Amino acid sequence: MADFTFYTVAMSRGQIARWALHEAGANYDQVVFDWATRPDNFVDINPMNKVPTLVHHHGGHDHVVTEAAAICHYLAETHPGTGLLPDAHEKASYFRWLFFAAGPLEQAIIGAAMGWEVPPERAGMAGFGSLELALDAIDSWLNTNDFVCGDRFTMADCYVGSQFIWGLRFGTVAERPSFKAYVERCTTRPKCVEAVAIDQKLIEQAQTES
Amino acid sequence: MADFTFYTVAMSRGQIARWALHEAGANYDQVVFDWATRPDNFVDINPMNKVPTLVHHHGGHDHVVTEAAAICHYLAETHPGTGLLPDAHEKASYFRWLFFAAGPLEQAIIGAAMGWEVPPERAGMAGFGSLELALDAIDSWLNTNDFVCGDRFTMADCYVGSQFIWGLRFGTVAERPSFKAYVERCTTRPKCVEAVAIDQKLIEQAQTES
Repeated sequence: MADFTFYTVAMSRGQIARWALHEAGANYDQVVFDWATRPDNFVDINPMNKVPTLVHHHGGHDHVVTEAAAICHYLAETHPGTGLLPDAHEKASYFRWLFFAAGPLEQAIIGAAMGWEVPPERAGMAGFGSLELALDAIDSWLNTNDFVCGDRFTMADCYVGSQFIWGLRFGTVAERPSFKAYVERCTTRPKCVEAVAIDQKLIEQAQTES
Repeated sequence: MADFTFYTVAMSRGQIARWALHEAGANYDQVVFDWATRPDNFVDINPMNKVPTLVHHHGGHDHVVTEAAAICHYLAETHPGTGLLPDAHEKASYFRWLFFAAGPLEQAIIGAAMGWEVPPERAGMAGFGSLELALDAIDSWLNTNDFVCGDRFTMADCYVGSQFIWGLRFGTVAERPSFKAYVERCTTRPKCVEAVAIDQKLIEQAQTES
């Protein structure tokens, strides 16, 4: 049995986790399904009933990790020799932008796509402010830094980068020069190309079969 | 100068970060303001213009950390002797529930409070499913575990616990037995009591002055 079991759907946020698995060089088996044919026991593994879900078979236990950002960081933690974790002076940026992308940025993107409006009298309740404000905040960072931690790629970029890869593709994030250049830096990485090709092949197979 | 400068508003998510500062035993100065009187340079420190914001003065640099969950975890990372970081076998739960609380749970709580509805045809886009589903997921964990990592408190509980402390107080999270017991375990911790008392005093001072 491989160290990890990766539950995914080809066209889903599972692609973020697959990229992270390949950057980490993790040894994994995959369970690929579509939304209509989930394994019967899947809800016992992840009560949120969603992918990606990763199970780490370690020390006689099955450790379940859910949430794409958590999976990315967990893979960096469990593969410390790969240089994907932040150094001491990179930790502030790494955790700041990783949680920013998983929290306020995700909320702002989804809210704008859904057409949700924050009533002015409740603005303090919504930590994301607005999509413009959230994009401005990270735009200012990416205008002067190639990656989340400055000049080198770390695991935070798998998750933060994916927000921009998918956001620009779906038109849910405005195409600004810093975002486009960041996406280019991420998607040309050999491990990203390798991971995307696997899911692309699965999507094509599913289309041929249906 | 202290190691950390903590920018906060007394009645805000800053209370989460203060609790974390006290659990970590961090050496900090505070800059307390209200929403109407932000320091002029604050937007340069955090372009999201929100609190909590933490600056770590370290190695000749000012490292900015934003996002309450990131601040909690960063304080655990920078105070490794305090037992607030997860052990190897606790990391899956620690990161899973920390990102769950900062992502889907936060989104579901805010969305329900705002009265936002996810159109059924776009359900796959919203990673939080629904508030019921998100609460069920963590309820099942807290029914069999005292804390995020099982039987002991870690830094993840500062953030995850705060979602329940505030959610039950504001009525944005349904009061279930596992949530109430978890909040009790968190709020009776001496460092939580100590941190809350500081903000409570600041709130009372502001009320007396106004």
